[in-house]
Amino acid sequence: MTKPVTASVLEQFQLVLGPRGVLLNAPDKAPYLKEWRDRWHGETKAVLRPASTEEVSRTLQIANTHEIAIVPQSGNTGLVGGQIARPGHDEIVLSLDRMTKITSVDPTDMSLICEAGATLKSVQDAAAKVDRLFPLSLASEGSCRIGGNLASNAGGVNVLAYGNARDLCLGLEVVLADGRVWNGIKTLRKDNTGYDLRNMFIGSEGTLGIITGAALKLFPQVKRYDTCFATIPSIAAGLSLLAMAQEMSGNRVVAFELLPEIGIQFAAKHMQARRPLPAGEWFVLFEFADASPDAMFGLMEKAFARGFVSDAVVAQSSAQRDQFWHVRETLSESQRFEGGSIKHDVAVPVSKLPQFIADASEAATRFIPGIRICCFGHMGDGNMHFNISQPIGMDKQAYLDQWEAMNEVVHDVVLKHGGSISAEHGIGVLKRDAMRKIKSPVELEMMRGLKRMLDPKGILSPGRVLPD
Amino acid sequence: MTKPVTASVLEQFQLVLGPRGVLLNAPDKAPYLKEWRDRWHGETKAVLRPASTEEVSRTLQIANTHEIAIVPQSGNTGLVGGQIARPGHDEIVLSLDRMTKITSVDPTDMSLICEAGATLKSVQDAAAKVDRLFPLSLASEGSCRIGGNLASNAGGVNVLAYGNARDLCLGLEVVLADGRVWNGIKTLRKDNTGYDLRNMFIGSEGTLGIITGAALKLFPQVKRYDTCFATIPSIAAGLSLLAMAQEMSGNRVVAFELLPEIGIQFAAKHMQARRPLPAGEWFVLFEFADASPDAMFGLMEKAFARGFVSDAVVAQSSAQRDQFWHVRETLSESQRFEGGSIKHDVAVPVSKLPQFIADASEAATRFIPGIRICCFGHMGDGNMHFNISQPIGMDKQAYLDQWEAMNEVVHDVVLKHGGSISAEHGIGVLKRDAMRKIKSPVELEMMRGLKRMLDPKGILSPGRVLPD
Repeated sequence: MTKPVTASVLEQFQLVLGPRGVLLNAPDKAPYLKEWRDRWHGETKAVLRPASTEEVSRTLQIANTHEIAIVPQSGNTGLVGGQIARPGHDEIVLSLDRMTKITSVDPTDMSLICEAGATLKSVQDAAAKVDRLFPLSLASEGSCRIGGNLASNAGGVNVLAYGNARDLCLGLEVVLADGRVWNGIKTLRKDNTGYDLRNMFIGSEGTLGIITGAALKLFPQVKRYDTCFATIPSIAAGLSLLAMAQEMSGNRVVAFELLPEIGIQFAAKHMQARRPLPAGEWFVLFEFADASPDAMFGLMEKAFARGFVSDAVVAQSSAQRDQFWHVRETLSESQRFEGGSIKHDVAVPVSKLPQFIADASEAATRFIPGIRICCFGHMGDGNMHFNISQPIGMDKQAYLDQWEAMNEVVHDVVLKHGGSISAEHGIGVLKRDAMRKIKSPVELEMMRGLKRMLDPKGILSPGRVLPD
Repeated sequence: MTKPVTASVLEQFQLVLGPRGVLLNAPDKAPYLKEWRDRWHGETKAVLRPASTEEVSRTLQIANTHEIAIVPQSGNTGLVGGQIARPGHDEIVLSLDRMTKITSVDPTDMSLICEAGATLKSVQDAAAKVDRLFPLSLASEGSCRIGGNLASNAGGVNVLAYGNARDLCLGLEVVLADGRVWNGIKTLRKDNTGYDLRNMFIGSEGTLGIITGAALKLFPQVKRYDTCFATIPSIAAGLSLLAMAQEMSGNRVVAFELLPEIGIQFAAKHMQARRPLPAGEWFVLFEFADASPDAMFGLMEKAFARGFVSDAVVAQSSAQRDQFWHVRETLSESQRFEGGSIKHDVAVPVSKLPQFIADASEAATRFIPGIRICCFGHMGDGNMHFNISQPIGMDKQAYLDQWEAMNEVVHDVVLKHGGSISAEHGIGVLKRDAMRKIKSPVELEMMRGLKRMLDPKGILSPGRVLPD
């Protein structure tokens, strides 16, 4: 248990961080306490905004000495409540939003070094300026920040080709709970000297240390995309199409997204999305990067002949490409206009997708008849956003009250198929109680051992990730 | 400090592993104690050969109880002495060579599950049988085993496109020092539930746990290679060629290797390698996988025009491709016929290669005039095998006596350029004393903390990786 934040501790923070570095007034603190979906509402005595690694270090020295709970916050776009200071727990928010510098970009090394508070968009732009690609791509890329992307091992639409945030990181700088600084920034592609500490911090959601800087991998800029929107006769056919697409493009499939008819209807109705194809049951939106100019045409010919697609349209311009992606990117938001939506961010082995979607749909419908399942997502990674809109006419709050019970129904199917109940978004406070169920005792013991070793007083993001 | 191996402990091992599982006679033990380059000579009272994870677990329970030092050994191809039981230390060898099963291969999931003792070659073959590629590729692939590949985070020629062993692993099974089994085998592409334990074990060289099984990533089989052997006017020109090749192939460069004139001479003289091009100073051997059929031609035209290559030949058949690769693959071995060779496995940021090679060559030559530097390797990763053959006529042993002093000379240049003194081969016993010099106190403390947490009695591969 951490201790209460006293006036004297706040003074010490002010001494280190100056007036700009410590927000105390409610209006100043508000943006750091509000979660964009209004699912979590935070409470904190202060928001700390260090301007340098040195300031983060001195802040944590104070916090560790006085056993003050610190919640690092990056772009405040997290979906599992990790970044929101919990009411009644006297947690102090530490925001990285003043540490936004892009330190260096090297097109020959294919690397970029930045502070943790740099927005994903600013990193993408800095790479593009030297004709390089930073491939991490998420709906929130304008506001999310690299530190949070790494702390949560962010995924997104290009994981199929480029990997998760973890795979895009060459080195880290981390401030430990007691204020010690680990400088692990390097741009080497190969370095087998000792244990891999980088990956210990990546995905640890701010519970093991605060990421203050990162060296990232860049890639050659893509010169040509081939983008296709297709109707598939079944999920299984979609998997056959995926395999064929990977083979015929020379492994250049960079995205392969599944969309359901109902999602396209929602997007068309509420988000002005233009539907690319007539009504069907399932659709895929997929893309080649720098494949042979005739690869997509060859694929289409063969996929139609084999019955893997029943209708398809290939983007003829970048405007049409944007139109296709608009449908995909507004799916999630469009559900807001259809009443309550209970969400699941899950993954199964790719081959299990057809059975998983069938089983989970059946189980969820049995639990609450009349629900409208909007299952979409990163088919190439086996990662589905299995989101469920309420039955028409049902009371919204009565439906949302079933959130956890519905989660249990769906997660049981996920686990039956050897899947993950958090593919992209992490554990945070939302799913930490489930950890006891999904992790073996030996795995939990190792996790607790890491926490004890790196944060013996438990000041960093308490109540997140690890179950009590 | 671990304790002496008593007759009673050996009996307990025999009880668990049976007669086939415990080798006691010198001729039986010999292959496990000999290192292929004859640099290390081992000594052990017994070689243990468990046939299952359960047997590994029970073996470690005994060893941990009695504080017996255990040295896991995979294919015995390591280059830093990690797998060889040290004379005078009473270390017991635990070989994984009876655990060779390929458990499953799934072309849709693009995954393969196997026991840790499966040879790399057998994994490559099992993948190829379902038209998939397991891209890890090393000179020792016929004898090295997956457990060792992962424990040492093996590299090889395809890292540029597919990553290290670390990047090719989806899940692990590990037996901890006290015999507990962590089953982290899964074939999910995305799973953000809790800390990343997998990468903690990968690259830890058997000091934190014994890897007994793995789930691996597969890729689409490559249908077409374009392979080029080219003379480059300078290392800097080679880097320009690399960037141009990546852009013009649509990021399909899967290997980009540097070779020096002297290496080609050695390979031609001692290994019947046919030289692909007339004498020059530096050469590169590089390859596209499934690029557009005209990509290589387009590159050549532009690269000649810009002066990035001065001569080149593109393989016209797979036989010619093999011929090119034969030159590269025999470079290391051919040096054996030229007397003593002092080796360095180092990496620098790719952009630093020209300056690093110049500086290191100068420093080494100043240290021992007349040396013949054979610097070759994975240019695309900044990873050089900076190997130095002795001056003609010098006494071999007198030269080899300078091994460590020469290492220091070269490593100082590496560190000056922000590089790694072990890019691929790891630390083992060979480089562990250097760890104090290359790692910060905070990094060493974290490494020691991990060791204490997972192996409090220090029975796993003592004397490796961590400095005293």
